[in-house]
Amino acid sequence: MTLYNNTRLLQALKRQPVDVPPVWLMRQAGRYLPEYRSLRTKAGDFLTLCQTPQLATEVTLQPLRRFDLDAAILFSDILTIPHAMGLGLSFQEGEGPQFERHIETMRDVKALPILEVEEDLNYVLDAVYMIQEELRGSVPLIGFAGSPWTVACYMIEGGSHKNFINARKMAYQAPEVLTALLEKLTIATIAYLKGQILAGVNVVMLFDTWGGLLTPEYYQSFSLVYMQKIIARLKADASTANTPIILFSKGAAVNLEAMADSGVDALGVDWSIDLSSARKRVGAKVCLQGNLDPALLFSTPEKIRVAVKSLLNEWGAHPGLIVNLGHGIEQHTPLENVQALIAAVHEGRG
Amino acid sequence: MTLYNNTRLLQALKRQPVDVPPVWLMRQAGRYLPEYRSLRTKAGDFLTLCQTPQLATEVTLQPLRRFDLDAAILFSDILTIPHAMGLGLSFQEGEGPQFERHIETMRDVKALPILEVEEDLNYVLDAVYMIQEELRGSVPLIGFAGSPWTVACYMIEGGSHKNFINARKMAYQAPEVLTALLEKLTIATIAYLKGQILAGVNVVMLFDTWGGLLTPEYYQSFSLVYMQKIIARLKADASTANTPIILFSKGAAVNLEAMADSGVDALGVDWSIDLSSARKRVGAKVCLQGNLDPALLFSTPEKIRVAVKSLLNEWGAHPGLIVNLGHGIEQHTPLENVQALIAAVHEGRG
Repeated sequence: MTLYNNTRLLQALKRQPVDVPPVWLMRQAGRYLPEYRSLRTKAGDFLTLCQTPQLATEVTLQPLRRFDLDAAILFSDILTIPHAMGLGLSFQEGEGPQFERHIETMRDVKALPILEVEEDLNYVLDAVYMIQEELRGSVPLIGFAGSPWTVACYMIEGGSHKNFINARKMAYQAPEVLTALLEKLTIATIAYLKGQILAGVNVVMLFDTWGGLLTPEYYQSFSLVYMQKIIARLKADASTANTPIILFSKGAAVNLEAMADSGVDALGVDWSIDLSSARKRVGAKVCLQGNLDPALLFSTPEKIRVAVKSLLNEWGAHPGLIVNLGHGIEQHTPLENVQALIAAVHEGRG
Repeated sequence: MTLYNNTRLLQALKRQPVDVPPVWLMRQAGRYLPEYRSLRTKAGDFLTLCQTPQLATEVTLQPLRRFDLDAAILFSDILTIPHAMGLGLSFQEGEGPQFERHIETMRDVKALPILEVEEDLNYVLDAVYMIQEELRGSVPLIGFAGSPWTVACYMIEGGSHKNFINARKMAYQAPEVLTALLEKLTIATIAYLKGQILAGVNVVMLFDTWGGLLTPEYYQSFSLVYMQKIIARLKADASTANTPIILFSKGAAVNLEAMADSGVDALGVDWSIDLSSARKRVGAKVCLQGNLDPALLFSTPEKIRVAVKSLLNEWGAHPGLIVNLGHGIEQHTPLENVQALIAAVHEGRG
């Protein structure tokens, strides 16, 4: 096993003491970086970056060359699974994802092929190998997948939508179709995350971006239960049991207690709730990750430093804190402010 | 003062016993009704409907002819104030609102004229008079305004946006500009709601659709504090003090306790939280309004009936419940399902 130079993230995930809290940023490899924009222009489009292991590796490493981040996160997309299932994914500039075909009926669900990760998503596994070779144990690498509910939202809608009304309608109109889809995605996601772990990622994260669109009852029955199955299967398999899992349901802070009982190691938290209030609710059961407002990064280094100190001081000496944003970093974020955020976290409390 | 035939809403707002809970639906006058779509086609566009009192009256009354609703709500838009301030509002079909000019600097804020409700928004007041004449005391009429923060979001962004990043950035980058804008909107909103009350509305509602985009600290300092000022001023003025006020901050359930302390009569609640959990948190301080998922209305009359019974039974015999959706009714909602929802509420518990 690789010995890591920087073990802050892995220690925090075990709720062990660390010198200073680890920090990384959702979408840290992305459009706010000029070197990313330049590579994307050369590559032509977003999917080519994801599907070409050399390019995905380069993009994954870009933010680590600039910033003292405590983790790398695989450059990929939560829609690789439905793309591999043949729905025909594309990304229009500034428009978000678009599928050629969408899911409407039980027939559509049954027609989805069983995912063969080693074949269908070999480009992701290859990227993981290449990234780990480049990282040489400097920082751990986070792999990820979308939650079954969140991925289903896009598959049913055929792309992005303001409030995914067609996916939500299906929960009421044809719950048996939605359930069949979620079960198929759950099996695929288990295989996909296991593949990523065997290829070398050190941590996995489940992005449940649209969990907050559901009532508490439906959050339980259409989102959380499938994430629990994924977590349970990974924890029961000796080859994946030791890899920490982070779960992030955006806009679903009302369900924090239920998430904390899911068997997960850490919960991502958005900025709609104070991190210290969240900790009071879930106790020491899980590590917490978050939760600065991405809009804060448009202020000044000094204001960012004040906000970070305030977060760290309110959190106190408890173990199990990973500093991050409450959602992905915004496109036009000034680079010096990212620098200021990371430096302030690494200064620690005070 | 008019004697109302149907006093359920007003009684519930005072937390007095009612035979069965009142029910009305956000956007009940709107695109799911064929008679609305037909009138809109004739009128040409949405703004013409809002600005022509005869048409706004007709649209307001349309759902009451079909359904046994316990309230009418003025047909208008939360962006009438910035439109009256000269920002040049238009609605593109399927695109949402668009302003010709947006707010960026202190100079832009200072250039905004002081609103003269009687002149600039006389079409709204005329509609209120006309609607009340038609209603003849059958049901109470709800007036409304956007919260200063929510209206500011559109004014800064220049229209609708996925997450209003420019408004959120301004909170961090130029809080003095945002504050000046919010203060100006607060004064305008007080005058606007007072105008509506003097013209005859029986209840007013503040729509804080984007309050949930803020951290708890910023929700307090950039949204709630201005709504508190509006509430305090209306409650301190003898001519408006007796008109109940409903406050609805979407996606901000984490702040329910603070909202309940704002001096308001009722809180709107979205479907991200159980209504009975919300009641446990705010106690008997306020009436609660909500919170069925608009997607439920795409299921069947029988399933809707089960969901309504479950809401009513969980709520129990407590006073102060107004049944509504947790957000506006969706465009393609089947009419027979709206009928089923209202009938189920009026059957009461059991």
